[in-house]
Amino acid sequence: VKLAVLGSGSWGTALAVHFGRCGFEVLQWCREPEVVESVETGRENVAFLPGVKYPDSVRATLSVKEAVEGSELVFSVVPTQFTRAFWKEHAEFLKGKLLICASKGIEIGSLKTLSQVYSEVFGDADSYFVLSGPTFAKEVAVSLPAAAVLAGKEGKVEDLGRLLNSPVFRLYSSSDVKGVELGGALKNVVAIAAGISDGMGLGYNARAALITRGLSENKRLGKALGAKEETFFGLSGLGDLVLTCTGELSRNRQFGLALGKGEKPHKGRSVVEGVYTLKAVHELSKRLGVEMPISEAVYSVIYEGKSPKDALRELTSRPVKGELE
Amino acid sequence: VKLAVLGSGSWGTALAVHFGRCGFEVLQWCREPEVVESVETGRENVAFLPGVKYPDSVRATLSVKEAVEGSELVFSVVPTQFTRAFWKEHAEFLKGKLLICASKGIEIGSLKTLSQVYSEVFGDADSYFVLSGPTFAKEVAVSLPAAAVLAGKEGKVEDLGRLLNSPVFRLYSSSDVKGVELGGALKNVVAIAAGISDGMGLGYNARAALITRGLSENKRLGKALGAKEETFFGLSGLGDLVLTCTGELSRNRQFGLALGKGEKPHKGRSVVEGVYTLKAVHELSKRLGVEMPISEAVYSVIYEGKSPKDALRELTSRPVKGELE
Repeated sequence: VKLAVLGSGSWGTALAVHFGRCGFEVLQWCREPEVVESVETGRENVAFLPGVKYPDSVRATLSVKEAVEGSELVFSVVPTQFTRAFWKEHAEFLKGKLLICASKGIEIGSLKTLSQVYSEVFGDADSYFVLSGPTFAKEVAVSLPAAAVLAGKEGKVEDLGRLLNSPVFRLYSSSDVKGVELGGALKNVVAIAAGISDGMGLGYNARAALITRGLSENKRLGKALGAKEETFFGLSGLGDLVLTCTGELSRNRQFGLALGKGEKPHKGRSVVEGVYTLKAVHELSKRLGVEMPISEAVYSVIYEGKSPKDALRELTSRPVKGELE
Repeated sequence: VKLAVLGSGSWGTALAVHFGRCGFEVLQWCREPEVVESVETGRENVAFLPGVKYPDSVRATLSVKEAVEGSELVFSVVPTQFTRAFWKEHAEFLKGKLLICASKGIEIGSLKTLSQVYSEVFGDADSYFVLSGPTFAKEVAVSLPAAAVLAGKEGKVEDLGRLLNSPVFRLYSSSDVKGVELGGALKNVVAIAAGISDGMGLGYNARAALITRGLSENKRLGKALGAKEETFFGLSGLGDLVLTCTGELSRNRQFGLALGKGEKPHKGRSVVEGVYTLKAVHELSKRLGVEMPISEAVYSVIYEGKSPKDALRELTSRPVKGELE
């Protein structure tokens, strides 16, 4: 089976290399000529995933058309905020192909997930799949074991999951596209909260509570948006959240850490994904009437100049209720 | 309001000190005369929680009768495997008192939770409550923020939760006693699995997947035992599991780490709680027909001499299915 991987960042490269090792014929589209050159001559993506050897079954190209037309299956791993424009530009070749989206996040301007964007661009959603879960690219690239979820149309996604599954990268199937997309996007807000807590020196108990209650409010928002609750407790929700809050320092957590230590937001530092997501969460939760106290606390720190201490005081002074309410 | 805390380990001490600071009058029963001495004269439990100053509102006693009879509310923080004998011995004073059990684990011989033990000893369950969640004693003792669940009879537990709640130690209420008890007990098996994985150097992705899929199999067992599924995704389930698998080294995780690095089980090292729980889980899952592949893999390593590598190979070679199946 022939695969196209559209994107040459660390995750696109890890997927290309992994599936190449599994015996697929992979054609990777890279935007930068240097990367194509580096892969074709040095068998390595020096710029974005140095130290990982490409198998012979993976080739790189500068042409989206070439990558897509020769393939039965297309992985889209373009940065989320550029994905709509990219799909539109190449709609001619992409239309009708089975497309697996491996980018995470919400489109900021529209507050839409990428499956919604796909429907708007291609006028149908049956060929759309999403891959998400706790997957550091570096680990997948060197064949350390991982598991993720592949979501898409029931009846089609199971076969695709079995085709792509391997012991070293297990793929569970799901029909809850929306839930799988939201888990990977919303986790970044909780990661900032956990970072703030760690930066304030609040300890492991506080962090574990934030992860648990944060996931529970993400689930409430997800449900209001049409996702299944259970999906949030799977690999794309809980799994990815745990990875982000406790694994190597993610940029979102690092940003939170600095805030917790007293730095002011927006001080020249480049803005992390979670800050955009936070804005989307704030607007969506208001519009849908979903209570999200942790996200609101983070919002008040980042967008309203509240001190982390005051935000914590308000958060912990809320009346308690049933855990499942 | 007067409270008794029965037990003088680190958790009992943290609870006594915390509620003392909240304005309750606390009488702590300690088994060891040295501990009573240390608390009464030095205002510190040097043996089990050194460095934490007792407030004046907490007193220590060697008499269970004195502690219980003078109190409206009793915390039981005796080691799980000794709890039945302890309750039986002091049933005369304990009967009819509101009892909050803060010990975690399953009674090994009977495979029962402590609420079941309570019912057998006292012939009724209405006065039984359980407190559980992600709570390192050391952090609660020094007033770092934490959150936990208090479960008990609906209609009673909400009032008790509000009485004991404070901003620094928030208590959510629940009517799912069994679910709250099981979360704290079953997490230890997953902690061993996560330790083995870390010991083998499998990385963050693998650990996040084990936590997620491990919690999901605990939930299946819990459901078969009459607990609510959602409880496993709350503070006493997910929260405590995340704390144990990623916080300071718990003894269960440490034990797993050693196994993952090639040490043989039972080599003189004192046995951790999770090893007992594992046996209970193995028997219960068989009896109830619940598939628990991760627990079974850990069981085969500890009780059947399988190498972690072989166990991993079998675990990752299982056919994949829907994530929510």
